[in-house]
Amino acid sequence: MSPRAQQAVADATRVVGYTKYVELIEDLIKDKEVVSTGMMQEIDRCQKALDLAMEGHRVAVVSSGDPGIYGMAGLVLELATKCPAEDRPEVEVISGISAVGASAACLGAPLMHDFAVISLSDLLTPWEVIRRRVELAAEGDFVIALYNPKSVKRNWQIEEVKNIVLKHRPVMTPVGIVHHASRDGEAKVIANLGGFTDEHIDMFSMVIIGNSRTYVKEGYMITPRGYQV
Amino acid sequence: MSPRAQQAVADATRVVGYTKYVELIEDLIKDKEVVSTGMMQEIDRCQKALDLAMEGHRVAVVSSGDPGIYGMAGLVLELATKCPAEDRPEVEVISGISAVGASAACLGAPLMHDFAVISLSDLLTPWEVIRRRVELAAEGDFVIALYNPKSVKRNWQIEEVKNIVLKHRPVMTPVGIVHHASRDGEAKVIANLGGFTDEHIDMFSMVIIGNSRTYVKEGYMITPRGYQV
Repeated sequence: MSPRAQQAVADATRVVGYTKYVELIEDLIKDKEVVSTGMMQEIDRCQKALDLAMEGHRVAVVSSGDPGIYGMAGLVLELATKCPAEDRPEVEVISGISAVGASAACLGAPLMHDFAVISLSDLLTPWEVIRRRVELAAEGDFVIALYNPKSVKRNWQIEEVKNIVLKHRPVMTPVGIVHHASRDGEAKVIANLGGFTDEHIDMFSMVIIGNSRTYVKEGYMITPRGYQV
Repeated sequence: MSPRAQQAVADATRVVGYTKYVELIEDLIKDKEVVSTGMMQEIDRCQKALDLAMEGHRVAVVSSGDPGIYGMAGLVLELATKCPAEDRPEVEVISGISAVGASAACLGAPLMHDFAVISLSDLLTPWEVIRRRVELAAEGDFVIALYNPKSVKRNWQIEEVKNIVLKHRPVMTPVGIVHHASRDGEAKVIANLGGFTDEHIDMFSMVIIGNSRTYVKEGYMITPRGYQV
């Protein structure tokens, strides 16, 4: 968490967020009034934050990772721009350490070259769109970072991704899996494209598939930038 | 800068980095001994950091943005894994606020959906590889973030990118340009695909091209996640 984000929470008179994320910063929130809601109530949550701001509160909406990468920044702004101009709250997006960046740091240096970031969640995006993006990213030899790679109910997509990328890259291409990146319980596995789906993967995991030059050495996953070393 | 990165610099007995980046954190470095070198001396700089570590120093290699995204993490690890096992320094990569994340926050919320990150620098990568990635990312309707979009000598690539993406997206597709993201002098322009190359763009700029659904409203560049709002 950046000092700027810490300051924003400290300066707020109300804190809004998904229950589990709010719990992560209890120390910072202290005795502030908190509006926390469960998963899948994103619209209500962001609207509530805007309502509080329009009532005169200084509100911090708490997101995990970087709120500007698949986070709450978009929904807050979509709703804010619908508020009547005279009441519209001022919104500032404060970026954080992204899950993809934190995961990369944990694995070594897999993002030294061009990469594609794709969410496998098909709740709001048709699978056909996601599948096609995986295909094109694989074809372009992008390093591929997968958000929301697998859940209890959504478990076959990651297998399909594996099969698509295998059409373009060798079985031994390194694949890094990071759980709870930069949080308590952070753990990683470095596997390969042929076998990585046998590892434990869930909604707290980030999967990073190397490009054709990515290698593993001394436990580090490295995508060379291209320097002659 | 995260508290963890600040602590790493505070704990170091030597600081190594590109002169301009070291200057940005002068207050933090105080009277520590600094090895700063100019641009284009990346290999020397990282090897020097490892040499100092092998002499027993605790060394902080300073990078701008996230060192794990096109930063010095890769080169340090590539060189570290070549050190003899008995002397090999322990390397920890500490992620930061990425330039792409900081730029997105400055523009609004353009990265709410799948995105491709591409560097237009052809110093270490053949232009044909870069060009093809732009083509595939455009075809897949990825939001496209461009690192190193243009320099004094390398000025025609951004025009080619524009023409490629125009084959797949409307002229009015929003394009955000951020200069000096999250630093003194931060500035932004939101233009469109047809005209963005008329704006000032240099090596301190990040260019983010929206996908087919990205829109601009009340000065914010927003890529909807897909919620029904």
